[in-house]
Amino acid sequence: MSTKKPLNVAVVGCGFMGRTHSNAFGKVGNFFNLEHRPVMKAVCARSDASVKAFAEQWGYESVETDWRRLVARKDIDLIDIATPNDTHAEIAIAAAQAGKMVMCEKPLGRNAGESVRMVAAVETAKVPNMVWYNYRRVPAVTLAKQILDEGKLGKIFHYRAKFLQDWTISKDLPQGGTGLWRLDVNVAGSGVTGDLLAHCIDTALWLNGGIDKVTAMTETFVKERMHNLTGKVEKVGIDDASAFLARFANGSLATFEATRYARGHKALYTLEINGEHASIFWDLHDLHRLQYFDHKDEGRVRGWRSLHITDGDHPYMKHWWVPGLQIGYEHTFIHQVADFLQAIEKGVPAAPTFRDALATDYVTDAVLQSARSGQWQTVQRAS
Amino acid sequence: MSTKKPLNVAVVGCGFMGRTHSNAFGKVGNFFNLEHRPVMKAVCARSDASVKAFAEQWGYESVETDWRRLVARKDIDLIDIATPNDTHAEIAIAAAQAGKMVMCEKPLGRNAGESVRMVAAVETAKVPNMVWYNYRRVPAVTLAKQILDEGKLGKIFHYRAKFLQDWTISKDLPQGGTGLWRLDVNVAGSGVTGDLLAHCIDTALWLNGGIDKVTAMTETFVKERMHNLTGKVEKVGIDDASAFLARFANGSLATFEATRYARGHKALYTLEINGEHASIFWDLHDLHRLQYFDHKDEGRVRGWRSLHITDGDHPYMKHWWVPGLQIGYEHTFIHQVADFLQAIEKGVPAAPTFRDALATDYVTDAVLQSARSGQWQTVQRAS
Amino acid sequence: MSTKKPLNVAVVGCGFMGRTHSNAFGKVGNFFNLEHRPVMKAVCARSDASVKAFAEQWGYESVETDWRRLVARKDIDLIDIATPNDTHAEIAIAAAQAGKMVMCEKPLGRNAGESVRMVAAVETAKVPNMVWYNYRRVPAVTLAKQILDEGKLGKIFHYRAKFLQDWTISKDLPQGGTGLWRLDVNVAGSGVTGDLLAHCIDTALWLNGGIDKVTAMTETFVKERMHNLTGKVEKVGIDDASAFLARFANGSLATFEATRYARGHKALYTLEINGEHASIFWDLHDLHRLQYFDHKDEGRVRGWRSLHITDGDHPYMKHWWVPGLQIGYEHTFIHQVADFLQAIEKGVPAAPTFRDALATDYVTDAVLQSARSGQWQTVQRAS
Amino acid sequence: MSTKKPLNVAVVGCGFMGRTHSNAFGKVGNFFNLEHRPVMKAVCARSDASVKAFAEQWGYESVETDWRRLVARKDIDLIDIATPNDTHAEIAIAAAQAGKMVMCEKPLGRNAGESVRMVAAVETAKVPNMVWYNYRRVPAVTLAKQILDEGKLGKIFHYRAKFLQDWTISKDLPQGGTGLWRLDVNVAGSGVTGDLLAHCIDTALWLNGGIDKVTAMTETFVKERMHNLTGKVEKVGIDDASAFLARFANGSLATFEATRYARGHKALYTLEINGEHASIFWDLHDLHRLQYFDHKDEGRVRGWRSLHITDGDHPYMKHWWVPGLQIGYEHTFIHQVADFLQAIEKGVPAAPTFRDALATDYVTDAVLQSARSGQWQTVQRAS
Repeated sequence: MSTKKPLNVAVVGCGFMGRTHSNAFGKVGNFFNLEHRPVMKAVCARSDASVKAFAEQWGYESVETDWRRLVARKDIDLIDIATPNDTHAEIAIAAAQAGKMVMCEKPLGRNAGESVRMVAAVETAKVPNMVWYNYRRVPAVTLAKQILDEGKLGKIFHYRAKFLQDWTISKDLPQGGTGLWRLDVNVAGSGVTGDLLAHCIDTALWLNGGIDKVTAMTETFVKERMHNLTGKVEKVGIDDASAFLARFANGSLATFEATRYARGHKALYTLEINGEHASIFWDLHDLHRLQYFDHKDEGRVRGWRSLHITDGDHPYMKHWWVPGLQIGYEHTFIHQVADFLQAIEKGVPAAPTFRDALATDYVTDAVLQSARSGQWQTVQRAS
Repeated sequence: MSTKKPLNVAVVGCGFMGRTHSNAFGKVGNFFNLEHRPVMKAVCARSDASVKAFAEQWGYESVETDWRRLVARKDIDLIDIATPNDTHAEIAIAAAQAGKMVMCEKPLGRNAGESVRMVAAVETAKVPNMVWYNYRRVPAVTLAKQILDEGKLGKIFHYRAKFLQDWTISKDLPQGGTGLWRLDVNVAGSGVTGDLLAHCIDTALWLNGGIDKVTAMTETFVKERMHNLTGKVEKVGIDDASAFLARFANGSLATFEATRYARGHKALYTLEINGEHASIFWDLHDLHRLQYFDHKDEGRVRGWRSLHITDGDHPYMKHWWVPGLQIGYEHTFIHQVADFLQAIEKGVPAAPTFRDALATDYVTDAVLQSARSGQWQTVQRAS
Repeated sequence: MSTKKPLNVAVVGCGFMGRTHSNAFGKVGNFFNLEHRPVMKAVCARSDASVKAFAEQWGYESVETDWRRLVARKDIDLIDIATPNDTHAEIAIAAAQAGKMVMCEKPLGRNAGESVRMVAAVETAKVPNMVWYNYRRVPAVTLAKQILDEGKLGKIFHYRAKFLQDWTISKDLPQGGTGLWRLDVNVAGSGVTGDLLAHCIDTALWLNGGIDKVTAMTETFVKERMHNLTGKVEKVGIDDASAFLARFANGSLATFEATRYARGHKALYTLEINGEHASIFWDLHDLHRLQYFDHKDEGRVRGWRSLHITDGDHPYMKHWWVPGLQIGYEHTFIHQVADFLQAIEKGVPAAPTFRDALATDYVTDAVLQSARSGQWQTVQRAS
Repeated sequence: MSTKKPLNVAVVGCGFMGRTHSNAFGKVGNFFNLEHRPVMKAVCARSDASVKAFAEQWGYESVETDWRRLVARKDIDLIDIATPNDTHAEIAIAAAQAGKMVMCEKPLGRNAGESVRMVAAVETAKVPNMVWYNYRRVPAVTLAKQILDEGKLGKIFHYRAKFLQDWTISKDLPQGGTGLWRLDVNVAGSGVTGDLLAHCIDTALWLNGGIDKVTAMTETFVKERMHNLTGKVEKVGIDDASAFLARFANGSLATFEATRYARGHKALYTLEINGEHASIFWDLHDLHRLQYFDHKDEGRVRGWRSLHITDGDHPYMKHWWVPGLQIGYEHTFIHQVADFLQAIEKGVPAAPTFRDALATDYVTDAVLQSARSGQWQTVQRAS
């Protein structure tokens, strides 16, 4: 009995990201008043039992076990890719060629080479496309973007980002297979560089503009791990830790670091920007806060402000509860769907597009190349 | 095509609490694997236009504009009351008499007198019943309960709670009507005592046992406000601020305070418990954290631990995302529905029951009475 | 070879407070450019060995073992009392009658009765006098006073203070004698009320004006302890915990609490003031910070500011190091001596005077009386 | 009348560091029970008026205006150098050759070349020597060293340090002369690399062992500034910001950064170490705290502990006040003198010796060289 335009969605993948995306498509209409109403038409995964259970849990109307059948279906408007990295390119290109809108989990491809082909596919097909760099839609991060765009920080001197985890310290952890494909270089493309630094870089490019060059180091602390698919101890091909120095086009200097060996941190993505007049700091472990320092405040009472991003005038927050009541991680995906649907209404691109995500891949490729060469690497530009 | 048992839900009220409850009923099945599946059968509100819009936004199958019709419907299993306080008793009693399960927004009645009748109704009808003291289901608070029950704190010396807001400081804010009925004593029953302290008391009774006696003070800072329903400036009957000292049955001492005049705080509900061996502190503005101090730690490295309540072994958290990724306010309601449905499966009461909530009303009544009398008041027990 | 006027100081007592005072007298001249130079003329304590060791360590020119001899000496300008509470009155009155300036550790007397006589003595003798309520001179607290005096907070609604410790939880701790006289009611006068709440009250009266009335509760958790002086298990006469509600003359409401049974807190003196326009919060465990919330800030970037009180325009801080480098506890005593010496230069009283301290004693007496009577008590005014 | 052995101290320089050192020599005897007693024999500075005023304020017995006269005096045991960097080598070498003990403000020389000569001088003369890398003596940092030495962290994966300031952002700030010699490359040797990173590196080498190689970038944001000595606008030769990646000999990876363009930070020196079993974090803006995470804690109650480093079993703290009461910046210098005097008593070197400080200079030289060359640089070892 809805008065909204239906938009038929199919999700490929029913792992962790399949859940975050399904939740986003299912909830967006409760909180955002949009022209379109996502209809959870189909979900696809290789295991018949899993995909059926997932469909029941999330209310999908149908299931598929081969994504090619999904792409061929006429009743699907949007293909959303929530599979491991090694399948992104093939699915996305086929979906675009079939005229579907495409959303893709990050990173876009396993490397810029794959991503270039994906960009070409969606741009040739002229289909709406977006990559799930969801942290742009944390209200505190969006507010940071607003503040920067208003010039409150003035000239930028420093950018600082890190993403720290600790879940792979044990040598007994195997690589490969469900839940552990991120440790298999053939599936993932790289380790923390593509998994974690990619998030840091996407946000940085959005907030602070292009990166000119980088110098990097990476390390694989645990050199061999049992592989779940072969049952054998095999060389670990991914980077466990990755750090780089960078120079942005705007003249600012940056440090970036990601690791899965930082004991005590689960998903500590932090970013800080120091400008001439003001600075900001944000931290994923308290994602509902933004730290803000404004040098224009009167000297005696000048200090870092801890903004509790729960007021109606904060980005996205008028859609949620009342001041003081925080939202969490999953809401970033809901915001991303809302923005995607609004972009469709207006006929404009929804950032980050595939091309935006390619820019991140150029940086991660340069980071990995610098770590191998020991040299500063110039970063290729996506546009 | 679901294999779950349907449980037909009707919500009365489509304001702020109507939204939190609807979200909970709609989302619980995505995250919890339960025997029952809530079906969003009907929503009821006085305004036909509002209730229809609400029904579309939240996916209700039907609407009503008179709760009596809802109570009379055969296809409803559970009546959920999300209306202003002055209607709780009448609706709950009628629903119970009609054999419906009843969930009721807090506080139960406007005073213990109303609540006693409500308890009698659900207990006579032997219907499952629960009150939405949702903060018990913040994972950090539930963890506090576990820790206490395991004896980690030892003998308790101190309990300390406050709930600070600042949204009524302006004298220009009117009272009464939509969104402002909490300032109208006839509708609300009391001010911050029933609205905010009730939350603090419910948690305290759960964590620390019964309260023997209290001494209190209340204040109404703004004595007169324009009334939205009469259009006239009228005396303000509610308490703007309320504080009390208490002695618990277990020998511990407590301070409680609530106000809507604490500039800078939106919904700062904090609680602290000091025991012989350990202490805990929690704060609604960072609800995903619990502060914990354990005196048994080695002296040199002993300190308050900031627990980031996002791990799979924390209460409720295995149902959500991965370590490091926080949930928010709305999830407490989802947890409450999950627990209610599990209690139904098992045929046990789901706390806090109406009787549990009556215990809180006896404390708030004693607080208000002490504030009037200037005397210590003994608190009546609910069971 | 100094060009300063010497001011001959004698300290009575060489325990913890003897050290903090000695440090203050010895160091003030290094950091403050004052007309007077304190000369550490004599120190007095009952034990000859202790006082000689203390004199060598702190550079005192002479020692005494009877404070009466000290009072009789012509070469002493200022008698500073750093002894247990039961000797304050006798020494202070004798010193004043001998025409000495008098500084006295807090609380002034063991009760207001003693304090009244002490006030009379210094006022009759017209000698400069001051009480070591040192926390007024924490730069962050002094800044709070400045901000309040400038009207930045507007009308005050709430005052909230607590002082939490945990050092007497063990039942095996004896009472009485060196280091433990604070547990002996005959020496101390009261427990946490006079020891800890007195600090909270002094600051509160200074920042927020007079208190009209209070309702209180106290508790002695450990009822009997071995007494170090008698060698016998004896009843504990002090209050281990004390809490009260208060109404200030300016219409604001307050909660106060102190205890030595708050596991995890060593000296957690916190205070918060909520005003119409702004709020402040301070905490002794991070004494170099002041939290400040200003509602006049632009909404989106409004938040609690964490002021790092180390800049040259913060109170007292131009005398110390450079921005970012914190001072600590002992500096509050140095500031107090500096202010005392400046007041002498100008011929004005140095707050808190004995009379100011009497105002605090009237509050602590009312608190203890209310705890006994169970009634609200009106607080007597000192002036 | 002291029973201690006098040790005659002469300080060269009466600027900021002259004050911190003088305070340390003057106060150490009040708090530490040592065999030697520093006697403040002489202070030296070029301006006769300044040095006399300084001597009076700090209680020096005599003054000099030429350090060569000081070195020639027979009544001086220890020469302490608190002058700008360009004079360190000459004074230290002369003092050592005259058989004096030598303490020197950091960095040792303006570059490793100068430092090598200084090391040779003190080692040839066999005189006790020490460099004021004072942050090793922050109790929290010393505790970190203890914890590391006990193996609590296990294998180290990551080291992370930064030192952020914001005092040179204004283009109107001149360079050179009193208070601003740190901006004059000829006097300072380098900018933040020698001034701030040197602190970070000294601590890092102490806590985490040797650094093998580095890749770095530096920037001078403001290219020209008025020079106070010439009165002309001149090229700025120092680095305003400096960052580098490093690999330690123990296999851990590191990021280091320092800047004077980080708006909102005054002296934010932070360090973090992530080990296999535990992690630590420390921050100069709250120097009395250490953050500690121990993975061995029970999972549900595992979290970062905020250690309040004020207990008697924390390094140095038994010499100060009581638990809960913090010390500040200046105390690190007092600790350093105490340790130096104790080392003399025992006839052992007092770290960091000149040779220890040379190791830091080798790193800073490699950092500056890498910033110029764009290549990874191998770090020379000092021993």
